[in-house]
Amino acid sequence: MTSQPKDVGILATDIYFPPTCVQQEALEDHDGVSKGKYTIGLGQDCMAFCTEVEDVISMSLTVVTSLLEKYGIDSKQIGRLEVGSETVIDKSKSIKTFLMQIFEENGNTDIEGVDSTNACYGGTAALFNCVNWVESSSWDGRYGLVVCTDSAVYAEGPARPTGGAAAIAMLIGPNAPITFESKYRASHMSHAYDFYKPNLASEYPVVDGKLSQTCYLMALDSCYKRLCDRFEKLGGKPFSISEADYFVFHSPYNKLVQKSFARLCFVDFLRNASSVEEVAREKLAPFSALSGEESYQSRDLEKASQQVAKQLYDTKVQPTTLLPKQVGNMYTASLYAALASLIHNKHNSLVGKRVLMFSYGSGLTATMFSLKFRDCQYPFTVSNIATVMNISDKLKSRHETPPAKFVEILKLMEHRYGSKDFVTTKDTSLLSPGTFYLTEVDSMYRRSYAKKAEDGTTGGKNTTACENGSLANGH
Amino acid sequence: MTSQPKDVGILATDIYFPPTCVQQEALEDHDGVSKGKYTIGLGQDCMAFCTEVEDVISMSLTVVTSLLEKYGIDSKQIGRLEVGSETVIDKSKSIKTFLMQIFEENGNTDIEGVDSTNACYGGTAALFNCVNWVESSSWDGRYGLVVCTDSAVYAEGPARPTGGAAAIAMLIGPNAPITFESKYRASHMSHAYDFYKPNLASEYPVVDGKLSQTCYLMALDSCYKRLCDRFEKLGGKPFSISEADYFVFHSPYNKLVQKSFARLCFVDFLRNASSVEEVAREKLAPFSALSGEESYQSRDLEKASQQVAKQLYDTKVQPTTLLPKQVGNMYTASLYAALASLIHNKHNSLVGKRVLMFSYGSGLTATMFSLKFRDCQYPFTVSNIATVMNISDKLKSRHETPPAKFVEILKLMEHRYGSKDFVTTKDTSLLSPGTFYLTEVDSMYRRSYAKKAEDGTTGGKNTTACENGSLANGH
Repeated sequence: MTSQPKDVGILATDIYFPPTCVQQEALEDHDGVSKGKYTIGLGQDCMAFCTEVEDVISMSLTVVTSLLEKYGIDSKQIGRLEVGSETVIDKSKSIKTFLMQIFEENGNTDIEGVDSTNACYGGTAALFNCVNWVESSSWDGRYGLVVCTDSAVYAEGPARPTGGAAAIAMLIGPNAPITFESKYRASHMSHAYDFYKPNLASEYPVVDGKLSQTCYLMALDSCYKRLCDRFEKLGGKPFSISEADYFVFHSPYNKLVQKSFARLCFVDFLRNASSVEEVAREKLAPFSALSGEESYQSRDLEKASQQVAKQLYDTKVQPTTLLPKQVGNMYTASLYAALASLIHNKHNSLVGKRVLMFSYGSGLTATMFSLKFRDCQYPFTVSNIATVMNISDKLKSRHETPPAKFVEILKLMEHRYGSKDFVTTKDTSLLSPGTFYLTEVDSMYRRSYAKKAEDGTTGGKNTTACENGSLANGH
Repeated sequence: MTSQPKDVGILATDIYFPPTCVQQEALEDHDGVSKGKYTIGLGQDCMAFCTEVEDVISMSLTVVTSLLEKYGIDSKQIGRLEVGSETVIDKSKSIKTFLMQIFEENGNTDIEGVDSTNACYGGTAALFNCVNWVESSSWDGRYGLVVCTDSAVYAEGPARPTGGAAAIAMLIGPNAPITFESKYRASHMSHAYDFYKPNLASEYPVVDGKLSQTCYLMALDSCYKRLCDRFEKLGGKPFSISEADYFVFHSPYNKLVQKSFARLCFVDFLRNASSVEEVAREKLAPFSALSGEESYQSRDLEKASQQVAKQLYDTKVQPTTLLPKQVGNMYTASLYAALASLIHNKHNSLVGKRVLMFSYGSGLTATMFSLKFRDCQYPFTVSNIATVMNISDKLKSRHETPPAKFVEILKLMEHRYGSKDFVTTKDTSLLSPGTFYLTEVDSMYRRSYAKKAEDGTTGGKNTTACENGSLANGH
C-alpha cells in the first residue's frame, strides 16, 4: 500500500516549559547552604516549576497544539500518538487520551498509541515505538507524534533543587532532518531501586542519590561499550568519542553530564589507549587497574578524567546543556530538551553531523543511540526547528519567583496531589497566549482545562470534558 | 544485517492465574443478591484473585519463567520485553525492570522495551510495539516478549464480582503460527471518564458502569465500521461477520461480549442488509431508524440482536469465553486469555482461520485487528501452544475459596496496598511448584520475591533484590 519509508526520524519538534522559575543562586541563599552548592555542585542555573494552574496534561495540550499550528499540520494527518511520562495523575487513564481532545474536535479518532512508562526513559520508548511503527507493515502513511511531559518535584531537602518541568512534542515520519542510525544502538536494563515512586499517595519519589548516580554511570559504560563493539563490527574501524560530533545525555543535573562525558573518555582510554592523546593517557594511567566498582567511587579518577575531557566537553557537550541547566530536570523530556538546546545553538552547522544520545530511566532502563542530521525541505529543516522552538524568547520571558513563594506553591501542590473537588485560581497572568491551564477537578476527579486566548485574555476556548458531549461528560 | 522478516506474530504463549478463586454462585448467596445476578446477569462463572503472596510482579515472573522453560528459549535470545498493565505498584519503576532479574542472571541486559499503560489496552499496545520492532530496521534478530499482567479488584458493591487476575506471556517473532493481517486494523481513541484510577492511594478504580458499557460499544462500532471499510477498499469485496471465523473480545464480563457480538450483527444489517439472513432482517428492521445514542440504550434492540446473533455466537464466540468466564476480568490479559481459550478449545482446526480481535481500554483506547492461524514447525505450532498452556489442568487444580474468606483477604490487601515494612505469611501451600511469590516489602518499599521449588517445597531460590549484588541491594 505504501512504499518502504526511508530516513525515518524527527521531522519537527516544539518545547514548552512553565514561565515560573526559581534561580538556583537564590535558592542557595534561601536554603542556607554553602554558596555554589546548587550552581557549581549540581551545575544548575535555574529551575522551572508548575503552579496550580499547570500540570503534565496542560503542558502537553499546549505543546501539541503549538507544534501542529506552527507547522500547519492538519490533525487528521496524525496516525499515532505516544506519550512518555512518569508523572502519574491517573493510574489507568493515559495522558494520550487527554490529548485526544485536540484530535476529536477535528474528527480524527483513529490514532494508535498509549503512554510508555519507566522513569525518565518513557519518552525514548515512545520515540522508538513511533519510529518502528513508521517502518512496520502496519504504518498507514500518516505522521507519528511523540510527547514527553513531566513535572519533577522533590520533598524539601537536598534533592529539591534537582526539579524541573517541561513538555516536548516531536513529529515523526520519513525523510526527516534528524534520522536514526538504527543499527548503532545499545541498551542496558536491570532491576534496581535507585529512584522510584512506591508511595502512591505522594508526588515525591524515593531517591538514593548516590546509588542512582552509580547506576547511571554503570548503565552508560555498558551501553557505550556495546555501541562501540557494534560500530566496530559493522563499520570495520575503531570507535571512540571522535566518531561522534555531539553527545547528548539525560540530564538530572549538569554535574552528572560532566561526569558522564569524562567517563566516556576513560572508557575510550581503557578500550584503546591510542584513541586518547598522550597527555590524557598519562593522567589516566594510574587508574587503569581499578575495578569497575572502585572506578565509580574514585574522586581522583573523576577529577583526572574531567580535566582530560574538558576541551572536548566544551565542543561536543556544552552546546546541549542550555535548557537542562535553565529549566532543570524534565525527566522524560530532559534528553530531548538537551537535543533542542543543540539545535538552538548550532542549527546552521548540524547537517551531516552525528549525535550520540544517552537515555536513562531509573529502575533501570538505558539506551545509547545515534542520530544524524540531514538537509531537508522546508518546513522540516534544522533551522526552521530552531526558529519554531524560539528558545531564546521563551527563556527571556520567564518570571523569576522568590524562593519563599516557590516553597509555598509546592506546599499547595503537595496538598492538591491526588485530591478532588477544587477549582484553581485560573490566574493566567504569567502564561503566554495559547497556553492551556487547569481550571477545576470535580467531585469525581474529572479535570477541566481551558486555553488562554491568543489575544491574551483568559476567555479562551474551554476544553473541559463536559464540552465533548454527553459521553465524556460522565453520563 | 538481517533480512526483512515475514509472518511476524505470536510464536508461543503461556498463561498463569492464581489458584485461589471464588464461585460466582457462592458470591451471589453471600452478597444476598438475586440468584443469577452474577452468573446470568454478568455471565460469569468464577473469579480468580491474588492472596497476599501474589501480585502482578510475581505472576509475571512466573509466566515468563514458565514460557522460557517450556519452549527451551535461552533468555539471551530475547531482545525486547514489553509489559502491559494497569495495576500500579510503583508509579515510576516499570514491571519490566522487575522481570529483568530473570535475564540478568544469564548475563542478558540488552533488552529494549518498558511498560505500556492505558487501562486494559496496555497489553495490545505492547504487542503492537513488539511486532513493529521485529519489522523495523532496528530489529536485531532476537525474539520479542510481551507480558500482560493485572489484578482487577473492586470496592465492595456491584462491581466487585467483575474482578479477576492473570498474567500472560507471548513470544514474538517471524514465521509465527499466529500472524497479523497488519492492514486490517482500525482504532478508536477518545477522551472519556468511564473507568479510571484517580484515587492514587486506593487500588480500586472509579467506575461509571453504564457509561463504560456505552463507551465500549461505541468504540466497537467505530472500529468495526472502519475495519469493514478498509477491508472492502483493499479486498474489493463486501465485509461482514462471515469473513472472520472467530471473534475475540476484551471481556470485563461475559454479558458484554454477548452484547458486543450482537451489536456487530446489527452493524452488518445497517451497513448491508443483504449480508444478514431474511429472518434477522425482519427482526432488526424496526430499529433501523434509531439514532446511535438511542441504539446503545434500547433494550428491545439488545434483545432482538442477541436472538439474531445466538447461533453465530455459539460458533464464532463461545469457544473464546472459557477463561474470561472462569477467571474473571484480567484487564490487559483478558483479550489474550480469550484467544488462549480459543486455542485450547479448537487447536486442531485453527490453521487457515481468521480471528478478529477487539481490544478496549477505558479512558478510552480501542483497536480491532485481524489475526490468521498458520501451519508452523514444532515447537511453534498451535497444538503445542495448547499443550503447553495446559488450561484444563490449571483450572482443575484451583482452590475454591468461601466468599467470606475472599472478602477477608481483600480487606487485608486493601490495607497492604501502597504500604511498606511488612512480611507475608510466605504460605505457598496452594501454589504450584515454580510459582513466584512475595515474601517481604521492606522499610524502603523494596519488594522481595521467592520461587516455590520444583519439588514442591518452599525452599526455592530467592530472587530478592538483595541477591542481585550490591547495586540492586540499595547501596
